[in-house]
Amino acid sequence: MTSFAVIGHLARTDGGFSLSDLPGSGGRMDILCRCVNTALFLSHDLRRDVDCYLILCGEPAGPKTVKFSGALVRSLSPDERSAASLIKKVIDTPCGSEFREGAQGVFIRKGGLERLIAEHVFGVLDEKGTDLRKAECLPDAFLLSDHLNFTDEEENLVRDCPRYSVGPKCLHADHTITLVHNELDRRTCGWT
Amino acid sequence: MTSFAVIGHLARTDGGFSLSDLPGSGGRMDILCRCVNTALFLSHDLRRDVDCYLILCGEPAGPKTVKFSGALVRSLSPDERSAASLIKKVIDTPCGSEFREGAQGVFIRKGGLERLIAEHVFGVLDEKGTDLRKAECLPDAFLLSDHLNFTDEEENLVRDCPRYSVGPKCLHADHTITLVHNELDRRTCGWT
Repeated sequence: MTSFAVIGHLARTDGGFSLSDLPGSGGRMDILCRCVNTALFLSHDLRRDVDCYLILCGEPAGPKTVKFSGALVRSLSPDERSAASLIKKVIDTPCGSEFREGAQGVFIRKGGLERLIAEHVFGVLDEKGTDLRKAECLPDAFLLSDHLNFTDEEENLVRDCPRYSVGPKCLHADHTITLVHNELDRRTCGWT
Repeated sequence: MTSFAVIGHLARTDGGFSLSDLPGSGGRMDILCRCVNTALFLSHDLRRDVDCYLILCGEPAGPKTVKFSGALVRSLSPDERSAASLIKKVIDTPCGSEFREGAQGVFIRKGGLERLIAEHVFGVLDEKGTDLRKAECLPDAFLLSDHLNFTDEEENLVRDCPRYSVGPKCLHADHTITLVHNELDRRTCGWT
């Protein structure tokens, strides 16, 4: 099982965003939707052994965490609008501190990074980290940020996590997930 | 200069598609829009030395080729809808066999793969190709297909092109572009 968690610093935490304006009204929800795509999709298939967590920290009710389960999700297509529709469907589901299923394979709970980091041993994707290709072993959970840097509070929470870099250029979160998957795929399949 | 060309076998060739239904009414235009994103975007920057060609082969007026120039494009954001808006803006521009600019940095002409392949030395992305990481040198132009396989006619056109594989799993075209960029970035920057 591989897990990806992405922090959406401004991502809207109620249904008050438009599917036709994910960057603006959604607080860069488009980034998170592309991360769901890259975390879960193969060509004509889903990565059933992957969970993708979106940590929504924006107005008006943050933080909330949405979990897409590759094993359980249904009605998900690769386009941004499809993932966004499922987020919109689950986002106002009454929930507490335990995950509650708001759509098939899509869960939501209150709370953000502090809770999630107690449940996973994350590797943090960071341009200054160890080259992913050269790391002797890799964790099975990875944490990324959206278009904004980690806040001081988040940096403090992840200060003991190992850090990995995917290459010499600073990339979008979803592109980074693709590169992590490729490295894991290669190691699993003996493409070294 | 690096170029990517993606064949959209069913991609709509007039403005008669909805920005709210890129997969359906656009003939999987969502795939092509994500390819524009991965070909051109760095975090908070554009890859100015990249061109992305979309070969639109669908109804009613195909084939047409749209070119996004990383050096010249303006008003492009990373979300699918942004690239789709620019395609919609240029798609009905009256054009002949030479590229005509329909929006800043976005060009269109009639014709498809046959014309393009006479202008570039393409490497074809193909699961059965040489491992990209192990190839001694790489071309500067890459050809991919959307969710459908190359047709017999296309296979015939590319029969002499070298073929490269990005890894052991069959991936979406946009994910594949990310992996090609990473390999090129690493070679350029000495991250071997």
